[in-house]
Amino acid sequence: MSMLKGNLMFGQSGGPTSVINASAAGVFIEALQHSDVIENVYGAANGIVGILNEKFYDMSKEDPKELELLKYTPSSMLGSCRYKLANADVDETDYKRVLEVFKKYNIRYFFYNGGNDSMDTCNKISKYMQNAGYDCRVMGVPKTIDNDLFGTDHCPGFSSAAKYIATTCMEVYQDARVYDTGMICVIEIMGRHAGWLTAASRLACEKGCGPDLIYLPERDFDLDKMLADVKEVYAKTGKVIIAVSEGVQTKEGKFIPELVATDDVAVDSFGHKQLGGTATVLADYLKKEIGCKVRGIELSLMQRCASHCASQSDIDESFLSGRTAVIKAIEGMTDYMVGFERDMSSGKYECKIKLLPLSEVANTEKKVPLEWINEAGNFVNEKFVEYALPLIAEESKQPKEDGLPRFAKLKKVLASN
Amino acid sequence: MSMLKGNLMFGQSGGPTSVINASAAGVFIEALQHSDVIENVYGAANGIVGILNEKFYDMSKEDPKELELLKYTPSSMLGSCRYKLANADVDETDYKRVLEVFKKYNIRYFFYNGGNDSMDTCNKISKYMQNAGYDCRVMGVPKTIDNDLFGTDHCPGFSSAAKYIATTCMEVYQDARVYDTGMICVIEIMGRHAGWLTAASRLACEKGCGPDLIYLPERDFDLDKMLADVKEVYAKTGKVIIAVSEGVQTKEGKFIPELVATDDVAVDSFGHKQLGGTATVLADYLKKEIGCKVRGIELSLMQRCASHCASQSDIDESFLSGRTAVIKAIEGMTDYMVGFERDMSSGKYECKIKLLPLSEVANTEKKVPLEWINEAGNFVNEKFVEYALPLIAEESKQPKEDGLPRFAKLKKVLASN
Repeated sequence: MSMLKGNLMFGQSGGPTSVINASAAGVFIEALQHSDVIENVYGAANGIVGILNEKFYDMSKEDPKELELLKYTPSSMLGSCRYKLANADVDETDYKRVLEVFKKYNIRYFFYNGGNDSMDTCNKISKYMQNAGYDCRVMGVPKTIDNDLFGTDHCPGFSSAAKYIATTCMEVYQDARVYDTGMICVIEIMGRHAGWLTAASRLACEKGCGPDLIYLPERDFDLDKMLADVKEVYAKTGKVIIAVSEGVQTKEGKFIPELVATDDVAVDSFGHKQLGGTATVLADYLKKEIGCKVRGIELSLMQRCASHCASQSDIDESFLSGRTAVIKAIEGMTDYMVGFERDMSSGKYECKIKLLPLSEVANTEKKVPLEWINEAGNFVNEKFVEYALPLIAEESKQPKEDGLPRFAKLKKVLASN
Repeated sequence: MSMLKGNLMFGQSGGPTSVINASAAGVFIEALQHSDVIENVYGAANGIVGILNEKFYDMSKEDPKELELLKYTPSSMLGSCRYKLANADVDETDYKRVLEVFKKYNIRYFFYNGGNDSMDTCNKISKYMQNAGYDCRVMGVPKTIDNDLFGTDHCPGFSSAAKYIATTCMEVYQDARVYDTGMICVIEIMGRHAGWLTAASRLACEKGCGPDLIYLPERDFDLDKMLADVKEVYAKTGKVIIAVSEGVQTKEGKFIPELVATDDVAVDSFGHKQLGGTATVLADYLKKEIGCKVRGIELSLMQRCASHCASQSDIDESFLSGRTAVIKAIEGMTDYMVGFERDMSSGKYECKIKLLPLSEVANTEKKVPLEWINEAGNFVNEKFVEYALPLIAEESKQPKEDGLPRFAKLKKVLASN
C-alpha cells in the first residue's frame, strides 16, 4: 500500500463512557510512535465542533505518563459534542469547512470515536472526502455503553457499564430487603432503543442478588401487565426489585414519563426524546397501587462514568481499538470501523479485532435478540448471561492516590498552523 | 472480674451500611471462640423486633468461611428494624418481654449494632436490665454512615460511604463537563441533621474534580443565596457542580422539597421526616432560573451499600469494634459503646479503641464543626480534608467471583430453646 504522510485528527463524540479515553490513549500513543508518517497528532476539542472552529490540541505536548493514565480516566477528556451534520446533498457548508480545515492542517488521518450517530458523522465525512478527491484515511473508533453498534460482538464502554450495573444491583438488592416490611425498588437504567444495559442487571441474578423483573425496550411495555407482575412477586416475598430501561415504550410509542406527564418531552439535536424520571414515575405509580414503600433509583451518569468499577478487558480492548485504527490506516485502510469478534476456541473468552465498512455500521442499531428475553417479556434468559458474563470478569487496575482515582491531567496546548 | 456464663444475642438496627456486617463478623467470630463462657451465639432477625418475636438465628450453624465473607457483604444480613422502644416509665411492655426472652434463652451478653436511635434502644435496655437486677452485659456496637455518634472520632460505615461519595463526585465531575454547553449538576447526598457525608464530596476537590458548592445542614439554607452562588460560578465557567445534603433547611425549618411541595412530608416511626427529591426539586428550580441543562443526581441507596468501593480500614475497624465488644464484655464491662480514637503519633493514621458510656452516647448528635465550613456557608475547608482523607486511603479487599462481589451466604438456622 502507498504511504500517506500528513497529520492526524482524532475526535470524541456523543455521551461519554468509563473507557472512551482508553481508545484516545491507544490512538495517541500509537500515532506518536509513527512520526515518520504522522508528523502531528491532534485531538479535536468537542469533536467535529472543534474541527469546524479550528480548535484542537497538540497531543505531542502531553506527558506520556498522563497519556497512559487516560486509560483509567472516564468521560471524554477532549470534550464531546452532539452536533449533527446535515446530508451533504442538502447542505454542504459543514463539509466544505471540514475539508478546508483538513487541507489547511494537512490532515490525512481522521479518526472519530463514538456511537451510532458518530459513526454516521464519520461515514459522511469519509464519503465526502472521497468524492472531493481529498486523500484522507478515515476510521471509526467505536464507543457506546448502549452496545448497539452493528456488526461488532460488543462495544467499548458496554462491559464497564455492565459491570457497574450488575454490581450496583447486587448491592441495592442487599440493602432493599433489610426491613421486615414490604419494599419495592425500581432501578432505572440507560438505553434509548436497545436493552443491553438493563439486561446487564440479569448478571446480578446469577449471584442470587438480582432483580425479580427486567423490562427492555425490545418488547412493548404495558403498565397493567407490569403491575400484575409486581403484585405476583410482592405477594410471594414482600420484596420486589425491578430493572427497567429508560427507553421502554407502549405499543402506541409512549414512554413511561409520557404515560403520566402532560407536558411535551424535550428533544435533543438528533431528534431523540430527552427521557428520564422513569424510576420516579413508576415508583409513584406502584406506591399508589400497592401501598408499600417504593424507592425509585436512577443510575444516572454513574453507570457511564464509574471508572473505579470498570472492566479491565474493556479498558484493554478500547485501547487496542484505538491502536488498531492507527496501524490499519497507516497500512492503507480507510472507511472502516474497528470492531470486535469473540473467540472462545481456547475455552475462555478472547477478543479479536475485525474491520467493518463504515457505511454498513452507520445508523444501524443492534438490539438484544428477542430469543434472549422470556415469553412474558419481564426477564432475560441465560443466553444473555453467557454473552455478557465473560466481559466483566476482570477488575480495573486503575491507579489510586490517597484512595481516590488518579485521573490523567492534560495540558491541552492548542495547535497552531 | 467475675465470669458470667450464658448466651449472646446480637442485633442490627437502623439503616444499613457497607460494613455493618463486618461488625457482625467481629462479634460472631470472636464469640464463637469463647465457648467456655458463651455457649450459644444468636443473631436477632430484624434487631429488637426479632427479640420481641423470639426469632433469632443460631450463628454456630454457619460456615466459618461465610462468616468471614460478612466483612465484605453490605447491608444488614440479619435484617434490620426501625422499631422505637417507649420509655420504660411510660410503657414497660416491650422491656418486660425482652427480659422474659433473655431469661428464657439465658441471654447474658446483649450487643446492639446501630446509630443514634439504636444506641438509645441499647441504653434503655441496659438500664432496664440493671434496674431489674438481671445480670446481662450490654454493649453498643456503633454503625452509621451519618458519622454523627457522640464521643467517637468517626463511625463504622462513614469512611466507606465517604470513599464512594468522593469517588463518584470525581467521576460525575468528569462526565458533567464534556459538552461545550452550560451544565449544572446537583448531587443529593444523605445526612438528615449532620453534613459529614455531603462534606465528603470535598475530598474530590483535592483531586481537582470536586463540587464548586457544598451545602451542609449545619448552616441555614437560603434558596436565593444559593441561586446567587450558582450564578456566580456559572458566569465564570458555564459548569457548576453542587453537592447538597438532603437535610439542609431554611432558618424557618423548611426542607428543600417543602419549599415547593404542597403536600405534607411523610414521617417515619422515629418522627423523622422522610426526605428525598431534593436533587430533582433543586434541578428544576435552577433550570427555570438559569435556563441551561441541569441534572439532578441522587446517590440514593448506593452511598450506603456500595461495598465494592468500601474503605478497607473501615472494614477492619468495624470488625475490630465487634470483636472488642465481645472481649470487653467477657472481661466484665457493660453499658458501654465501642468508640474510636485517632492516633497520629506515628506520623500516619492509626485507630485505637475507646469505650464510651452508653448514656453519654444515646441520642447525642455530633455535627460537622462550624469552623470547618466557610463563612459563606457554601464550601468546606481543609480541616475536613485533614480529618477525612486518611479514612478512605485503603482499597477494599472484597473477594470477587466472575468479576462480581462474592457476598456471604447464611443458612439462618432458627434457634430453638
